[in-house]
Amino acid sequence: MLARVFLTRVLEPGDEAGGRWVRELGAGEVVRRLRDGGRPLPGVSARRWAGIRARAARAEPERDLAVARASGVRFVCPGAAEWPGQLDDLGDARPLGLWVRGRAGLRMWALRSVALVGARACTEYGSHMAVTLAAGLAERGWVVVSGGAYGVDGAAHRGALGAGGATVAVLACGVDRPYPRGHAQLIGRIAEQGLVVGELPPGEHPTPSRFVLRNRVIAALTRGTVVVEAAHRSGSLVTARAAQRLGRHTMGVPGPATSALSAGVHELLRGGAELVTDAAEVVELVGEVGELAPERRGPVLPRDLLEPAARRVLAALPGSSAAGPAEIARVALTTQDDAIARLYELRALGYVERHGDDWKLTRQAVTSVREGRAAR
Amino acid sequence: MLARVFLTRVLEPGDEAGGRWVRELGAGEVVRRLRDGGRPLPGVSARRWAGIRARAARAEPERDLAVARASGVRFVCPGAAEWPGQLDDLGDARPLGLWVRGRAGLRMWALRSVALVGARACTEYGSHMAVTLAAGLAERGWVVVSGGAYGVDGAAHRGALGAGGATVAVLACGVDRPYPRGHAQLIGRIAEQGLVVGELPPGEHPTPSRFVLRNRVIAALTRGTVVVEAAHRSGSLVTARAAQRLGRHTMGVPGPATSALSAGVHELLRGGAELVTDAAEVVELVGEVGELAPERRGPVLPRDLLEPAARRVLAALPGSSAAGPAEIARVALTTQDDAIARLYELRALGYVERHGDDWKLTRQAVTSVREGRAAR
Repeated sequence: MLARVFLTRVLEPGDEAGGRWVRELGAGEVVRRLRDGGRPLPGVSARRWAGIRARAARAEPERDLAVARASGVRFVCPGAAEWPGQLDDLGDARPLGLWVRGRAGLRMWALRSVALVGARACTEYGSHMAVTLAAGLAERGWVVVSGGAYGVDGAAHRGALGAGGATVAVLACGVDRPYPRGHAQLIGRIAEQGLVVGELPPGEHPTPSRFVLRNRVIAALTRGTVVVEAAHRSGSLVTARAAQRLGRHTMGVPGPATSALSAGVHELLRGGAELVTDAAEVVELVGEVGELAPERRGPVLPRDLLEPAARRVLAALPGSSAAGPAEIARVALTTQDDAIARLYELRALGYVERHGDDWKLTRQAVTSVREGRAAR
Repeated sequence: MLARVFLTRVLEPGDEAGGRWVRELGAGEVVRRLRDGGRPLPGVSARRWAGIRARAARAEPERDLAVARASGVRFVCPGAAEWPGQLDDLGDARPLGLWVRGRAGLRMWALRSVALVGARACTEYGSHMAVTLAAGLAERGWVVVSGGAYGVDGAAHRGALGAGGATVAVLACGVDRPYPRGHAQLIGRIAEQGLVVGELPPGEHPTPSRFVLRNRVIAALTRGTVVVEAAHRSGSLVTARAAQRLGRHTMGVPGPATSALSAGVHELLRGGAELVTDAAEVVELVGEVGELAPERRGPVLPRDLLEPAARRVLAALPGSSAAGPAEIARVALTTQDDAIARLYELRALGYVERHGDDWKLTRQAVTSVREGRAAR
C-alpha cells in the first residue's frame, strides 16, 4: 500500500505508462527504480523521467498517510475489500488507489450509483433538473455521484443530501482541500453524510488536465452517466463519452433547442445517448439486470461477514415494519449520518429497502434473519 | 375519374374495405354496385351497407367537380401525372383521390417535402421553433407540409410563407371551406403561394376521425415528419407513428423536461425518433439518398415535357447568375406567387437551386439548356 501511496504523489492520474509499469513490475519495484535511478522505465522520455524522479525524491508516503488519517481520510487500493471492482475497466489508466473521506463503504455504494454531471454555469432549468433527478434517484435507493463543482454538480449533491440520500463527490485534488472554495461547506456535508473521494494525495491542487482525467473515474465508478446541461465542448461530455466507451449507460436531459447550454446534450443524444426526463427513466435504464450489479434474489454476503457497524444498524431495524433513520440510529447507538451510510450499504447488499424516508428489511433479509436466529 | 369523385363523397377517408373493392373491382364497378344495389360488397355489415348506399343515392359527382372547378379546385387521381406516387405506400388506405387548390404541381413538391406538425395549444417556444424550422427548410428548397391548424401547424405554414417558400396544407375537410375558421386568411394565402389539398369533396366538414385519418396523408406525402411540441396522446404523435410505420424519417424537437407540451415529443424520441434542433439537421436526415427521391445527376424530365408555365419560368432565369422571384416573374410574364410555385417544381426536377432569396440554374440545367440550343 505504501508503494501505491508513494506513486499517487509521483504519477499524474490516468498515466497509462505508469499503470503498465505497476502491472508488469509491481508497485514496489517501480518505487525502487524511481528511488534508486538507473535506466528509465519504458515509454518515457529522458526529460519526463527526470521530472518523475524529482517528484519521487520529494515523496513522503508515510507522512501522506499520517496527514490523511489525521483528517479522517483513508487510502483504498485495488484489490482491497472496499475497492470498487468496476474501476478495473479502466485498464492501465485505473487509479493507483483512491483517497476516501466518509463513513460509508465505497464498493457497495458504487454498485448502485449514477453520475449526474453538467455545466458549471448552468441555467435555473439545469439546476432544477439536477436537484429533482438527484432527489428522485436518492428516494429510489440510488447513490448520486458528481464532481463537486458549481452548477449542475452542486445541485445534484444538494438534491441527494436534501432527500436524506447518499452522494459521492469525486474531486480532482486532494480530498482534504475542498475545491471549489465556495463549496467547502457542501463538500464537508458530503463527507459527513456521503463520501468524498479522489486520486490525488493530501494537499494537491486541481489542474485542467486533472479535471479532465477525474471524469474517467466518475464514468467508470457508476452504472451510468446523466448529463443535465452542457454546451458544445463541455467537460461533462468527456465524462459521458468515457461512460459510453466503458459500456455504461449514457443519458442526457433534453432542453430547449434554443439553449446553448442544452446544445451539448442534444449533440450527445443525437450520437446515441438515451433521453431521460425523470429519475424513474434513469432507473429503468441503469436498474436493468447487468454485469455490474446482477439482480440479487437474496443477500449474497452472509450477515457474519458484514462490518460490525453495518451489523448493528441491520439489527436495529424492526422485524416487519419500517423505521426512520433517526430511530434506527438511536437503537444502533450511532449518529444519523452513520446510520444512513450503513443503510445504503445494506441496500446494495439486498438487506434493506427504502420506503419514502423510512427503511425496512427486505423479505429476503427477514427470511435470512429468521433462519439465522433459528440456526443459533 | 368521375367514379372516384363519386366515391370521395360516399366513403370515409382511409376506408380499407372500400380501397380493396376499388383495387379488386375497379372504381366504376364499385359505383355501379352502390347505385344499383344488390348483394353488399364484402367486409361490410348490412347496417353500414345501408348507410353507404344512402350516401351514394345523394352523390352528384358532376356537380361536385363543377363546384370545385368554379373555386379553382382540381381533382387528382392515382396514376395521374400530378399524383404523388408515395401515397401508394398506404395500400388500401390510399386516398381515392386528392382535391387540390393552388398552382404548383403536387407530385413534384411532395418529392422534396417535410411535415412539420405539433400541438394546437403550443407554447411560445413551440411556435418559435416551428417558424424557424419552416423558414430554414424553405430557404434550403424544401416544401413544408402541415395540417393548417392553430399552433404549431399555423406557425410552420407562416414560417415557410414568410421565407418566400413553398408550403402545403393538408385539410380534414373540403378544400373549399377553410378550417379552422380563424385561419381562413392564412389558408387563402397558402392556396395563392402554395397548395391546399384534402381527400374530402367540396363542402364536407371535419370530424374527429377525419382529423386522425388526415394525418396518414401528411405522413405518407412527405419524406419525414418533425414533431415540434406535443403532449402525451397528441394527434401529432399519430402522424409521427404513421411516418415511422411507412419508413419515413420521424423526428422530434426537444424541449424542457418540465414542459407537458414536450412530453409527447420526448416519448417519441425515447421510442427511436431522431432528435433535431434546426433545419440543417432535418435536411441532413431527409436529404439522404433514398427511394423516394433518388439523387439526380441531371434533369430526369426532358425540358420539352415540362408544362408550358414551368418552361416559361425556366426560360426566364439568367444563364449563369442568380435572380429574384420578382424579376423572374416579370420576364416570364406571370405573378410572383406563380413564379415561386414553378421554381420549387423546377427545383424538385434538378433544374434550379435557391441561393438566399434568389434562384439560379443548376450546372446540369445550364449544360442541358446549352445542348438543347446547340441541337436546335
